[in-house]
Amino acid sequence: MPVTLHPIAEKLKSLFVREDAVLREALQALPPEELANVVNGLGPRERQRVFRLLSDEKFGHALRHLSPHVRTVVAARLSAERTSALMDHLESDEIADLIPALDRRTRERVIAALKKSDPKKVLPLLGFESETAGGLMKSEVLRIESGQTVEDVRKLIGGMLNHHKATTLYVADPDGVLAGTVSLVRFATSPPTALIRDIMHDRPVSVPVTMPQEDVLRVFSERDVLELPVVDSRGRLLGVITADDVFDVLKREMAEDMSRFSGVSEDERITDPASLAVRRRLPWLILNLATAILAAWVVTWFQPTISRFIILAAMMPIVAGMGGNAVTQTLGVSIRAIALGELHTWNTWKIIGRQMLAGGVNGLVTGLIMGVIAWAWTRNLELAGVLILAMAINLFIAGLGGVAIPVVMKRLRIDPALASTVFATTLTDVVGFFTFLGLATILL
Amino acid sequence: MPVTLHPIAEKLKSLFVREDAVLREALQALPPEELANVVNGLGPRERQRVFRLLSDEKFGHALRHLSPHVRTVVAARLSAERTSALMDHLESDEIADLIPALDRRTRERVIAALKKSDPKKVLPLLGFESETAGGLMKSEVLRIESGQTVEDVRKLIGGMLNHHKATTLYVADPDGVLAGTVSLVRFATSPPTALIRDIMHDRPVSVPVTMPQEDVLRVFSERDVLELPVVDSRGRLLGVITADDVFDVLKREMAEDMSRFSGVSEDERITDPASLAVRRRLPWLILNLATAILAAWVVTWFQPTISRFIILAAMMPIVAGMGGNAVTQTLGVSIRAIALGELHTWNTWKIIGRQMLAGGVNGLVTGLIMGVIAWAWTRNLELAGVLILAMAINLFIAGLGGVAIPVVMKRLRIDPALASTVFATTLTDVVGFFTFLGLATILL
Repeated sequence: MPVTLHPIAEKLKSLFVREDAVLREALQALPPEELANVVNGLGPRERQRVFRLLSDEKFGHALRHLSPHVRTVVAARLSAERTSALMDHLESDEIADLIPALDRRTRERVIAALKKSDPKKVLPLLGFESETAGGLMKSEVLRIESGQTVEDVRKLIGGMLNHHKATTLYVADPDGVLAGTVSLVRFATSPPTALIRDIMHDRPVSVPVTMPQEDVLRVFSERDVLELPVVDSRGRLLGVITADDVFDVLKREMAEDMSRFSGVSEDERITDPASLAVRRRLPWLILNLATAILAAWVVTWFQPTISRFIILAAMMPIVAGMGGNAVTQTLGVSIRAIALGELHTWNTWKIIGRQMLAGGVNGLVTGLIMGVIAWAWTRNLELAGVLILAMAINLFIAGLGGVAIPVVMKRLRIDPALASTVFATTLTDVVGFFTFLGLATILL
Repeated sequence: MPVTLHPIAEKLKSLFVREDAVLREALQALPPEELANVVNGLGPRERQRVFRLLSDEKFGHALRHLSPHVRTVVAARLSAERTSALMDHLESDEIADLIPALDRRTRERVIAALKKSDPKKVLPLLGFESETAGGLMKSEVLRIESGQTVEDVRKLIGGMLNHHKATTLYVADPDGVLAGTVSLVRFATSPPTALIRDIMHDRPVSVPVTMPQEDVLRVFSERDVLELPVVDSRGRLLGVITADDVFDVLKREMAEDMSRFSGVSEDERITDPASLAVRRRLPWLILNLATAILAAWVVTWFQPTISRFIILAAMMPIVAGMGGNAVTQTLGVSIRAIALGELHTWNTWKIIGRQMLAGGVNGLVTGLIMGVIAWAWTRNLELAGVLILAMAINLFIAGLGGVAIPVVMKRLRIDPALASTVFATTLTDVVGFFTFLGLATILL
């Protein structure tokens, strides 16, 4: 059964006029993530109809892929009964992630229900910060002891067939401290009488429960593993994180960078209502307005020059804009380099030098092109010269700002992806206007 | 042994003045990815010294994390002997990825060596496109037959202990067609005499070898699996893709989006030489120059107005710039929505309407702020009115452009992340200058 990709549920909308049975069949056939994408785009009434039709299993799996806004709205309208039914189809970490999104009364009823039915599975997870190893792990672990034989363990895990994604058995000592691991391949090929302690790998890699999720991500990426055990400060085994959970974190983290880079909240989705978009984006726009006013103020210094050569008003946005493009290019590589840990104190100045050189050369080349065009347009050789010089200087400075600004942000513990663009483009606007109009005042 | 994160190799540079043994110890202690990040930042001579000191295993694992530029430079200088030695420590898919980066003579010698030593492992992988399921898979699969007993298989896979990451056994029929899967947990807990066909899951999910890697990524993400078998057009089992490989793809794909969004090549790293940065970035800057000239041309239409009110020259970049910020915000969410498949033909117009509404409201609010400031500054009420109107209109149009431009790009099969910004900011520049100066011409 090779997987065929669903053609993005294009035709689904037309099914909403059909009877429930037809719609249900189409919805149930979609994989959870795609189903969630469809639901994100629906209105409240259609959304309710979808959830009414879906099986608990399908609904449960789609829940965590919903946009944060839609998930909150949906979770608030869930009955405690339906919530409990949904939870039977989720892993412990998924339930723990979902509970905070419920409204308070539903949450209390659900937790009470969990306490009765399965207290060991989910409740221990609720206390952990969601953006740490503790928030990512699930409590379902194949936990064994070193004194057991292969045959003992075989009986023990015989009933745990839902661990179809497991690669590893975890050996804990009587205090619960993680003592070793046995890969399932090794386990499956060992004789029944072998002792676990004789076949286990006794220096297991683990992550502390408090480790931030970005660091967990890095450990996964560096070690090329499919799962990692999580331990508390005394080394006791608490749970396990599997690669598919980290996959989702990676997607969210990288989407965050992209969002911050473009000045929107990482929770924002295109399907959010307009009022939410207004509230969330306005602060960023107001900050940018403040910087734009700063740049405009610089322009006012040169009003006498502009009034003598009105063409300068048309040309000056070119110089500032090209600086903005160049600094964005440098930011694109330097923010990634900071995230990857490629920028060290010992190579930052060398790299800034290279970026300034690259920016200066690009400024000179585009300045020459612009100079020729300006000369053809106005027959004013001095204006052409001013353009070439101003663009070379501005793109040279853009190389400096594109590295130095995110590095300083990082030092100040501000996310470089979030705040760098606004400062960087302010720099190139101010430098662009100042050098261009300043040189024009002197040379024209 | 809980993992501690290495403090980004900050102190490493100082070790380069010490003797080889000290440096070697520090280098060997770094995980491969971090080691690669350090090497990316070194000069050619230091880089050679690092590789001379590293063990083949460490070097092999660091290779695929190097920046594309450094990897090509390093691979071209590798002897065939060292290459072969390195390859003993890599999985088949890693070797297949590395070979194309070698210079032609080394490549031929390495392939000749591979043909002798291990023809089944790597060679079949060389024919596949690198950005497809075939390029991601490795040929090391736990392949069994349905007629075997658990005991048979136990003996068979006894020597394959390097499959410590495996979760699943793959059942192939005599023609090699994938017929089923057995999870290792199930296998390990089944009686020795059980037949594989009785314990196997017989509707395995698989991906075709030609599937593009973005789609493989989506299947992994939707199915929450840790590995997926790869089959040819007749359903024959060719290999397996594990989540850790897809992890790397995801990182690269998302970094690509971020790079394209900021107008740099996805291969570019901050550690690249300046000459490479110049050549790669210049085309983008020249394209942006062309659009900036278009916007400047619009300004020239209004030279008489500007010459009467020089203050307009200072104000006009504010209107254009705020439109640019707003359209970038909308692009940030819409490009992600397109990538996730949240935009359908049936909801695009509704979403455009919402974005225009959000943009218009934000334009009105920031316009009012700017209007008050302009009035306080110039005591010119008409100017304040022109600013408010122009900003509201420009941000209203930004809402349209921020969705419509990437959607059109997608239809034209151009990557929305790559080309949308330049068109979108051209739109807001032109609309911003035209409405602001046009309204000023009429109203002042």
